[in-house]
Amino acid sequence: MSENKNISSISEDIGNQTTIYRTRWKNDNFLKLTKNLVEIGKNFYSRGWVLGTSGNFSAVTSREPLCLAITSKGSDKGRLTPAQFLEIDGVGNVVRNGDGRDEQQPSAEASLHLAVIRCTNADAVLHTHSIWSTVLSDMHASRGGIVLEGYEMLKGLDGVGTHQHKEYLPILENSQDMIELAQRVSATLQEYNGIHGFLLRGHGLYTWGVSLEEAIHNVEILEFLMEVLVRSAQARGSAVSL
Amino acid sequence: MSENKNISSISEDIGNQTTIYRTRWKNDNFLKLTKNLVEIGKNFYSRGWVLGTSGNFSAVTSREPLCLAITSKGSDKGRLTPAQFLEIDGVGNVVRNGDGRDEQQPSAEASLHLAVIRCTNADAVLHTHSIWSTVLSDMHASRGGIVLEGYEMLKGLDGVGTHQHKEYLPILENSQDMIELAQRVSATLQEYNGIHGFLLRGHGLYTWGVSLEEAIHNVEILEFLMEVLVRSAQARGSAVSL
Amino acid sequence: MSENKNISSISEDIGNQTTIYRTRWKNDNFLKLTKNLVEIGKNFYSRGWVLGTSGNFSAVTSREPLCLAITSKGSDKGRLTPAQFLEIDGVGNVVRNGDGRDEQQPSAEASLHLAVIRCTNADAVLHTHSIWSTVLSDMHASRGGIVLEGYEMLKGLDGVGTHQHKEYLPILENSQDMIELAQRVSATLQEYNGIHGFLLRGHGLYTWGVSLEEAIHNVEILEFLMEVLVRSAQARGSAVSL
Amino acid sequence: MSENKNISSISEDIGNQTTIYRTRWKNDNFLKLTKNLVEIGKNFYSRGWVLGTSGNFSAVTSREPLCLAITSKGSDKGRLTPAQFLEIDGVGNVVRNGDGRDEQQPSAEASLHLAVIRCTNADAVLHTHSIWSTVLSDMHASRGGIVLEGYEMLKGLDGVGTHQHKEYLPILENSQDMIELAQRVSATLQEYNGIHGFLLRGHGLYTWGVSLEEAIHNVEILEFLMEVLVRSAQARGSAVSL
Repeated sequence: MSENKNISSISEDIGNQTTIYRTRWKNDNFLKLTKNLVEIGKNFYSRGWVLGTSGNFSAVTSREPLCLAITSKGSDKGRLTPAQFLEIDGVGNVVRNGDGRDEQQPSAEASLHLAVIRCTNADAVLHTHSIWSTVLSDMHASRGGIVLEGYEMLKGLDGVGTHQHKEYLPILENSQDMIELAQRVSATLQEYNGIHGFLLRGHGLYTWGVSLEEAIHNVEILEFLMEVLVRSAQARGSAVSL
Repeated sequence: MSENKNISSISEDIGNQTTIYRTRWKNDNFLKLTKNLVEIGKNFYSRGWVLGTSGNFSAVTSREPLCLAITSKGSDKGRLTPAQFLEIDGVGNVVRNGDGRDEQQPSAEASLHLAVIRCTNADAVLHTHSIWSTVLSDMHASRGGIVLEGYEMLKGLDGVGTHQHKEYLPILENSQDMIELAQRVSATLQEYNGIHGFLLRGHGLYTWGVSLEEAIHNVEILEFLMEVLVRSAQARGSAVSL
Repeated sequence: MSENKNISSISEDIGNQTTIYRTRWKNDNFLKLTKNLVEIGKNFYSRGWVLGTSGNFSAVTSREPLCLAITSKGSDKGRLTPAQFLEIDGVGNVVRNGDGRDEQQPSAEASLHLAVIRCTNADAVLHTHSIWSTVLSDMHASRGGIVLEGYEMLKGLDGVGTHQHKEYLPILENSQDMIELAQRVSATLQEYNGIHGFLLRGHGLYTWGVSLEEAIHNVEILEFLMEVLVRSAQARGSAVSL
Repeated sequence: MSENKNISSISEDIGNQTTIYRTRWKNDNFLKLTKNLVEIGKNFYSRGWVLGTSGNFSAVTSREPLCLAITSKGSDKGRLTPAQFLEIDGVGNVVRNGDGRDEQQPSAEASLHLAVIRCTNADAVLHTHSIWSTVLSDMHASRGGIVLEGYEMLKGLDGVGTHQHKEYLPILENSQDMIELAQRVSATLQEYNGIHGFLLRGHGLYTWGVSLEEAIHNVEILEFLMEVLVRSAQARGSAVSL
């Protein structure tokens, strides 16, 4: 599914931004997308991928002009409600607050979501925070990334047709300076064109997709393979004898 | 339960394939089996055995002529609906599309399911994609297989009466050439008569049963024992002292 | 709760066994206990403690004469119904079949349940089949048992008031000869008076309680501590540096 | 949310303790808080953090005078009902029994909850009993504590703005002498002002928050980081090669 098509056609006939938003409010997919993101949050929470207030999710509600639904700062991803989402425009300004008031802010990492959406064909960005991505991203930070290769599971990634594919998962140093970090994200996505995700050191996974469905697949596939990577190395290290 | 008995008796009186299918459509077990497979998918997804779009399931809907219900390509196994199944005949042609349209294809691995059903007495084939089967199948590929022995859990496998049973689980190299791989699967099942499953390297487990129930047991038993095998070796490797 | 008190008082006024059973059928706790055991099965299945057809559960329905509700052979412990239980007497004869027919048999390990109930004050016996009990029971079989000591969790065991308690968990060699194995179970329970469970090698945990509630606690406590034991040894082995 | 504000205003106009309690019973948050704690118990039980009868929870129902809702001794944290809570005052006396009778006692560790509430600004205290806290607290007891540093997840802790924060998690020797242990808890909280939790050796985690929500976050964050710590060390120990 490509969430932005309806919106594009709606906005075609309309000349200014205010009108576009008004139209979108009547006939929009903000509510539909946030309901889906609420379910994703429950699922990922049950798997331990968004504990505490960690993780954040976004989905494109409009391409022209660019708008995203995004989780609010400090929300519990396992207990989200549509009211805990905001709609932001392409420079991060809030154009709609899910709770109808001005009390909540978008996720602090909104600029990373925007960077991903600008550099890829993604309509959805999911950031998770698992044990395995935390372990691997810290452990291999000095190598700059990890390679996933030889696994059938890779075929679930968009555009990958064989287990012999080499998927590169870059690791970026973590930072609290979101402007600087967004620039490094953009540079990384330009350098490694076609990758499906990246890690922030000691922080977690960013992945995306042309639809929420594809973004979910990418989370599940990359999380699975990171766990396989660590457990394989440990099994080899202990020289499993049969 | 043996799902094929009703169908066989229905098909006895009927001379040509078209008629058989029409009869089966009125009074068939396609819907019943796919509903069961939907539940299996939810269960296995919650255990992390069919993440992404991995895994695929089939069940025999008719023996004469041979027909299977099988999951469609790229479907999410944790969120299946009966509409996401197809019915294929013994050479892999689609004879029924669960969504009533021609938009979906059977799983790319349909020919492996057919190979298993032709070489065994199976009425159901389940393919899972767990962490442990991925780890073990890659690690021990060069030995050609692994042996499971001395575990009470083995008694749950059809025809096994003691924990002293030796169960051989062959490991086949993975391939994207399904014709060639199906031939290797058939050859393996003929060589190791009476086995209950096999692994594809870096890919996962295939197992089966004379009923869906038995196939579920085999998945659970073999997945359990693969995890035990790796964790035992690691526990011994770290010399647990009490 | 002590399930046998009602029954005892009912049986006081009644002279022969047939009458007792008739009375118990009118006013019994078979159905109540089996409903509780169904819920226990779902819970334990979700934790991976009774996969395949492994595990079996029993609860005393009558003390004079001794009768137990027990799971039937080959049943799925995660999907039990009250119909999948039988009532057996103190020598293992079936006095009631939950499905109202004679088609199912009690668990093959019924004699072990009877041995536990005769040697302890237990009104409920739960046998689970976890990864950790399988790993530990195989690994330490030659030592004859393991010691659990220094953990606050031990205080949840009946009669234990401090974490400094030493709990001994004997390991018995597995066998398919249930008469011989039941004798070894009885001898073990007499030798190690006051223990709360034992392991069968490569097979799993038996534990019990004066009530179902206490038996559940004992399963959870002993399973928890076995996992802690293996993971602690591995953490020490890899010399966790902070 | 700060649960104590309503209560404070209610108690302002009222001169003696009896009246305060009567007022609070009409218009109180005991029931609301215990319902929330019931849900927390289910969630934590499903994650394996409060198995057996382990763990205990409390929440402030009144500040002037100080009163807490607290779980009763020996209750199953995964199957709590509001009736299984008590309300105690600032010296541990029971002022209300959730079951309306005098049959249950507050958790044996009530004095630790009171110590935490007196030394911090907490309105809720959650004690969990996980595999990882048991492993780590035993293994590093001799060092007196562990340091968590460099993880984005730390930002979820109240007052922490960067992953570069160093969080100290003291480890106290376990004891059955609750008066003596409460004194050590108080001393530790005074010495390490601003910490978010502590471990009892072989026993588990205590953490807290100005609201139940914040206390849940702290449990999830600290449990996550303890697991990361052990798994990272093991992954490094086995020299994961990519």
